[in-house]
Amino acid sequence: MQYDISDITLAQAGQEKIEWVSKWMKVVNGLYEKFKNDGVFSGKKIAICIHLEAKTAYLALTIQRLGAEVWITSSNPLSTKDDVCATLVKNGIHVFAKHGVSKEEYAGFVRTIVESKPDIVVDDGGDICEYLHQYPKYAVNLKGICEETTSGVNRLKELEKKGKLRYPAIGINDAQSKYLFDNRYGTGQSTWTAITHLTNMSVAGKVVVIVGYGWVGRGVALRALGMGAEVIVTEIDPWKGLEARMDGYRVMPINKAAALGDIFITATGERMVIRTEHMKNMKDGAFLANAGHFDYEIDVPGLKEISKIATHVREEIDEYIIKKNKKIYLLAQGGIINIAGGFGHPIEILDLSFALQLASIHYILSTTDLEPKFYCVPKDIDEMIVRERLKVDGIEIDKDNRYKYSI
Amino acid sequence: MQYDISDITLAQAGQEKIEWVSKWMKVVNGLYEKFKNDGVFSGKKIAICIHLEAKTAYLALTIQRLGAEVWITSSNPLSTKDDVCATLVKNGIHVFAKHGVSKEEYAGFVRTIVESKPDIVVDDGGDICEYLHQYPKYAVNLKGICEETTSGVNRLKELEKKGKLRYPAIGINDAQSKYLFDNRYGTGQSTWTAITHLTNMSVAGKVVVIVGYGWVGRGVALRALGMGAEVIVTEIDPWKGLEARMDGYRVMPINKAAALGDIFITATGERMVIRTEHMKNMKDGAFLANAGHFDYEIDVPGLKEISKIATHVREEIDEYIIKKNKKIYLLAQGGIINIAGGFGHPIEILDLSFALQLASIHYILSTTDLEPKFYCVPKDIDEMIVRERLKVDGIEIDKDNRYKYSI
Amino acid sequence: MQYDISDITLAQAGQEKIEWVSKWMKVVNGLYEKFKNDGVFSGKKIAICIHLEAKTAYLALTIQRLGAEVWITSSNPLSTKDDVCATLVKNGIHVFAKHGVSKEEYAGFVRTIVESKPDIVVDDGGDICEYLHQYPKYAVNLKGICEETTSGVNRLKELEKKGKLRYPAIGINDAQSKYLFDNRYGTGQSTWTAITHLTNMSVAGKVVVIVGYGWVGRGVALRALGMGAEVIVTEIDPWKGLEARMDGYRVMPINKAAALGDIFITATGERMVIRTEHMKNMKDGAFLANAGHFDYEIDVPGLKEISKIATHVREEIDEYIIKKNKKIYLLAQGGIINIAGGFGHPIEILDLSFALQLASIHYILSTTDLEPKFYCVPKDIDEMIVRERLKVDGIEIDKDNRYKYSI
Amino acid sequence: MQYDISDITLAQAGQEKIEWVSKWMKVVNGLYEKFKNDGVFSGKKIAICIHLEAKTAYLALTIQRLGAEVWITSSNPLSTKDDVCATLVKNGIHVFAKHGVSKEEYAGFVRTIVESKPDIVVDDGGDICEYLHQYPKYAVNLKGICEETTSGVNRLKELEKKGKLRYPAIGINDAQSKYLFDNRYGTGQSTWTAITHLTNMSVAGKVVVIVGYGWVGRGVALRALGMGAEVIVTEIDPWKGLEARMDGYRVMPINKAAALGDIFITATGERMVIRTEHMKNMKDGAFLANAGHFDYEIDVPGLKEISKIATHVREEIDEYIIKKNKKIYLLAQGGIINIAGGFGHPIEILDLSFALQLASIHYILSTTDLEPKFYCVPKDIDEMIVRERLKVDGIEIDKDNRYKYSI
Repeated sequence: MQYDISDITLAQAGQEKIEWVSKWMKVVNGLYEKFKNDGVFSGKKIAICIHLEAKTAYLALTIQRLGAEVWITSSNPLSTKDDVCATLVKNGIHVFAKHGVSKEEYAGFVRTIVESKPDIVVDDGGDICEYLHQYPKYAVNLKGICEETTSGVNRLKELEKKGKLRYPAIGINDAQSKYLFDNRYGTGQSTWTAITHLTNMSVAGKVVVIVGYGWVGRGVALRALGMGAEVIVTEIDPWKGLEARMDGYRVMPINKAAALGDIFITATGERMVIRTEHMKNMKDGAFLANAGHFDYEIDVPGLKEISKIATHVREEIDEYIIKKNKKIYLLAQGGIINIAGGFGHPIEILDLSFALQLASIHYILSTTDLEPKFYCVPKDIDEMIVRERLKVDGIEIDKDNRYKYSI
Repeated sequence: MQYDISDITLAQAGQEKIEWVSKWMKVVNGLYEKFKNDGVFSGKKIAICIHLEAKTAYLALTIQRLGAEVWITSSNPLSTKDDVCATLVKNGIHVFAKHGVSKEEYAGFVRTIVESKPDIVVDDGGDICEYLHQYPKYAVNLKGICEETTSGVNRLKELEKKGKLRYPAIGINDAQSKYLFDNRYGTGQSTWTAITHLTNMSVAGKVVVIVGYGWVGRGVALRALGMGAEVIVTEIDPWKGLEARMDGYRVMPINKAAALGDIFITATGERMVIRTEHMKNMKDGAFLANAGHFDYEIDVPGLKEISKIATHVREEIDEYIIKKNKKIYLLAQGGIINIAGGFGHPIEILDLSFALQLASIHYILSTTDLEPKFYCVPKDIDEMIVRERLKVDGIEIDKDNRYKYSI
Repeated sequence: MQYDISDITLAQAGQEKIEWVSKWMKVVNGLYEKFKNDGVFSGKKIAICIHLEAKTAYLALTIQRLGAEVWITSSNPLSTKDDVCATLVKNGIHVFAKHGVSKEEYAGFVRTIVESKPDIVVDDGGDICEYLHQYPKYAVNLKGICEETTSGVNRLKELEKKGKLRYPAIGINDAQSKYLFDNRYGTGQSTWTAITHLTNMSVAGKVVVIVGYGWVGRGVALRALGMGAEVIVTEIDPWKGLEARMDGYRVMPINKAAALGDIFITATGERMVIRTEHMKNMKDGAFLANAGHFDYEIDVPGLKEISKIATHVREEIDEYIIKKNKKIYLLAQGGIINIAGGFGHPIEILDLSFALQLASIHYILSTTDLEPKFYCVPKDIDEMIVRERLKVDGIEIDKDNRYKYSI
Repeated sequence: MQYDISDITLAQAGQEKIEWVSKWMKVVNGLYEKFKNDGVFSGKKIAICIHLEAKTAYLALTIQRLGAEVWITSSNPLSTKDDVCATLVKNGIHVFAKHGVSKEEYAGFVRTIVESKPDIVVDDGGDICEYLHQYPKYAVNLKGICEETTSGVNRLKELEKKGKLRYPAIGINDAQSKYLFDNRYGTGQSTWTAITHLTNMSVAGKVVVIVGYGWVGRGVALRALGMGAEVIVTEIDPWKGLEARMDGYRVMPINKAAALGDIFITATGERMVIRTEHMKNMKDGAFLANAGHFDYEIDVPGLKEISKIATHVREEIDEYIIKKNKKIYLLAQGGIINIAGGFGHPIEILDLSFALQLASIHYILSTTDLEPKFYCVPKDIDEMIVRERLKVDGIEIDKDNRYKYSI
């Protein structure tokens, strides 16, 4: 068995975390019961590249229990949890991941995963997909790709448009059971758990500036309001800006908000939205955090440049002294705050996403004639997943189809 | 000059209402300034069929001031305000509308409007459009149709799909400046103003059942929560049902909610969603109201049938005694509660919708080669409207296009 | 029978309103059942001076049905509803009240009530009480006074402290069943019903300035937040100011808030809290409303003085033009907005207060040895009332006294 | 120098935590500046018994920097942080505290502290005070006692009533700057940080049962609502029960709520409010947590008794299997959830409380003629503290005393 991890002796700690997760990923567990005897996964090879923490580990173990061989790495060296990796290895899964490795090492891990010649690839951002298009020799067994994120989906659509997509690919993120829930409710809550846990500070009475009022921004803003903050939203889309205003928030450009905020949270998906020109106008003691997918929304290199002194003052908190009486606190080095500063999405939210992954893999493996195109998660799979979630949560909705709500 | 209204002596009262409205329809006023010298409306004939209250009257007067001749009726006999009609006649507008007329009389009004051979028709639900397709002789001057509602838009799309649409038509409702705002924020607020004004009762401490969690239902639920109600949502769409749950509401089928609610509000766009089987299980003293577009969401004929006694007990409140200790109160006879029990949408909200109308009419009149197809409001018009609203409200958003928020 | 009212022909309209109220004043109705056979009210004379609208009328009728003779006036000429007065006269109650009378006429009405030599006086603000201390000859039968308001209670306590209180007096306002509910939930809701009904404008997206963060201010602020407003609080008490901040509101002095607000609402109980120096800094189109008990919180005379033109533009809305592009809209002439612009407190809320009145009158009449002191509503009466309300609302609480919650 | 702690090598970790805290305890820091040259603390001995975590440590260090000698223990073995203890020892403070010691050892620590014959005692619950009354020989230098908690204050008042209070005592908890803020905003937020961090689960969509609607219960309920939970409140006080209902929550007895809740949180200050008869009716997978001061609100011994298996499954989470498909999860062993599962109150909140402590000690030391009575924190000290907090938070309130808000 092949693997490359940090420390196999951490397996016990990882085991406890995975077991906790296993209790609450009930939709995934329900799918396991549904699939366990149909043999669809038997003898297949599945390569996975997702933030490697306990929930992802449990997805991997479930796929393995269904009869497949799993090769796994993380989609980000900083989100890799070494204890969980150890547990997976103990359970016979091929893990290539270590917390905090260099870009080169990380790229090597991705290559190793791909070179296992998988039947299915679970991708997160599109790196594996790109590699497979470059080295089609590793795609000899490939039946399809399941892509987790918006940015990966965009790359797939681009490829398809150019006529260059060679393999069937399913965009998990476009399923209603995912995008309606994980960003708003998942990131919305876990961002605040992370910030309050890391800082031990009060949100009530603070001015919170939300940069971007998409799904993530809405969720983070709503929870800030619910915790007693004054919320300011910055936007460039005029309709979203007006929505934010009608939701009760102050709306203004980032260069004005800069001087008012106590806590700034980016949620745009775009580069460098908080820049040094803003930082220079901030109050002494302002906090910066990023809730978007990538770690480039805050101009961290710029922050370092304009700072006289930088000190690591507490777990995931760095203090930058720009001048006398002007300190800025950067959380989680500008990485995704809810993963770096906590355990990521609440379990029940990722349960939905990973159930979509599991069902989509099953769909690809059991469908024979998929063309090399971009697919949405089939509507009936999407609906099955949400209905399972309603069932495990004990939520009843009307079955009567004499009417359908639409206003 | 031709017209047919109830009482010309009411003009003064109507005048005051329209003047009030004119102060706050600032986006419409801005467009008037923009258009007033370009002559596009000069000598044109515009036929309008929308709920005829003060805001609609002001739209008509604005169109007239821009140089057009206006023929107008209401889209619903119950929403016609006789005083406003009188004011319009005094100002030289051709009004054919009376509060509470029969279906036949109403149909006659619509015909009269159409037979003026208008250049543009502003429709609300699609009745005029249908009539014009039946009697194309009245469409000799027709340049296009502007349709206000979802249901009218659906009929237009249907016609187009069948290849039977003969005139260019713009669906106002599909513009972001309309659907993102009027149902959620407009109906959300005005439904509660109407209910609390009509009943003089407390919302705090009540169980409010929202039937349907679309835009309207969300708005009405959010405002109920904000007033201290316990909110129950019924839905048939599983994703909307789960969203309602994640928003903190109880979610259950209508037949269970029936026994728990103090106030029931329908928002589905569908027929007969609250039926006698539900009414029989309601608490003594339950209230029924409809916030959807049509007046058939509550089974009012059924309610009458199962009642021993029906009494009009207060403005827009009827008491139905089903049996001893089981009374049900129907608000506004099951018609649209925020119009029947108040003044409809807040002025600033309808300002957005009517600005879209005004700009769309201008667009049709100044565009020469429009084919007989269904069109959305052009994106740049939609954006101009929302940017005007931001400006009059003093809301600033970022202009920096180095990033665009999207998560 | 003696009375002095505006128009006896309005009795039918008043009847409908009182009947509506009678359906929902369930705690009062429960007390009626409890008291109806004990004869305590028989032959007694009760003088009442409270805002004379439908709910007060129903209290009077209930007292009459219990066997007493009722003499009634209003505590404010502007809050008198003439139709309701007519109905009371039709039912044999001695009414001395007309909408909009002069101060002198109003004072005459109060005197007439007092000169009936009542057994019990129900007072609202302390005017009757003062008159009785001046003319003790009218107090020959007097068993006690029930005072509704904070300000009346303060005058009573003052009298007692000086050793000048000659009659037993109960302060209704100090009962938990009143002060915990009527200002926060009653005024909180009804203020917004009145404002949105009168103006037909959106609260979402507006800046609402709440002057004073006591019970009333908290209620009005909370409901503004719940309707999508941005809320600014001004205070002079530092703890309340910090509480407002921790509740998520912006907190600043009134002279800063003046330039930011769209809608200003006073809730201080003090004189002239919004003055001309603030008005001069307001935005064009600002609205002023008063939710406090007295009509002097806004400096209306000052407003008139600094205005070039004043116009009545809509029911209960006056427009003051201070200079070009600076208009201020005063609601309800600065009187109590929820009464002047609507129907006052929600019925269920006043039901609690009037049940306290009814039970307190009963207590005084059936207690023989009350000394001339100030009393709180006896704890067991206060508790009986709240428990009745819980019962009619179907709210169950724990009966288990093994623990008592206190943190 | 005397001390008894677990591990001196942990001092570095504790140092970092205390330094973080020192940045945000700005009111305490302001008092330090005010007091540092007046010599009041010089040569005095202060004995402190409060939950010994970073914020308490910073209070101790501040007192030391003001010239006093500090002897300190924790008020609870489970809340003692060993790293912080080590840091204090390194700084020359006499620490007697170890995490997780037995009751006997803990009692010994308290005795040691007392036997230092302190000038001032800072007590938390009244244990030291009791000991001093038993052994007055250790009180030879005693100038006064500062008591942090409600329960300690109650014991002091009891002593005073019986005429047995021998020393001046100040009840910190009765100061507005404390009780208006720490329970509602402090516990309200930190309870949820702890629960979401420990469980990694979603609050949105859950049924949260709050047992007790006092200050703590209100705060915890409000934040649950703000995070998307459905909230049920149980109460025995009828007014609080009705308030909870008017705030939008469902209100019912605990034995009914037992079957509905996903997460139960006690906040009563009373013993055994969640008992085995309730646990037996709970859903499979219910969580129990305690936000009250003492660890006896949940019947943990009873839970152990009715369980077949008990397993520690994750940090601060124990799983109790009562029968097949009936698991209950106990958080933090029933201890105070926000301390055991996190870092306790947000820093800014405890800053207020500890500033009150510091100023009260200063007041006792600089006042010569204090009688052995129970005192509230002097109003001007209370007001100074809240005004300092307003200042450091940049919150401005009106200074104009022409009016005072009171409604």
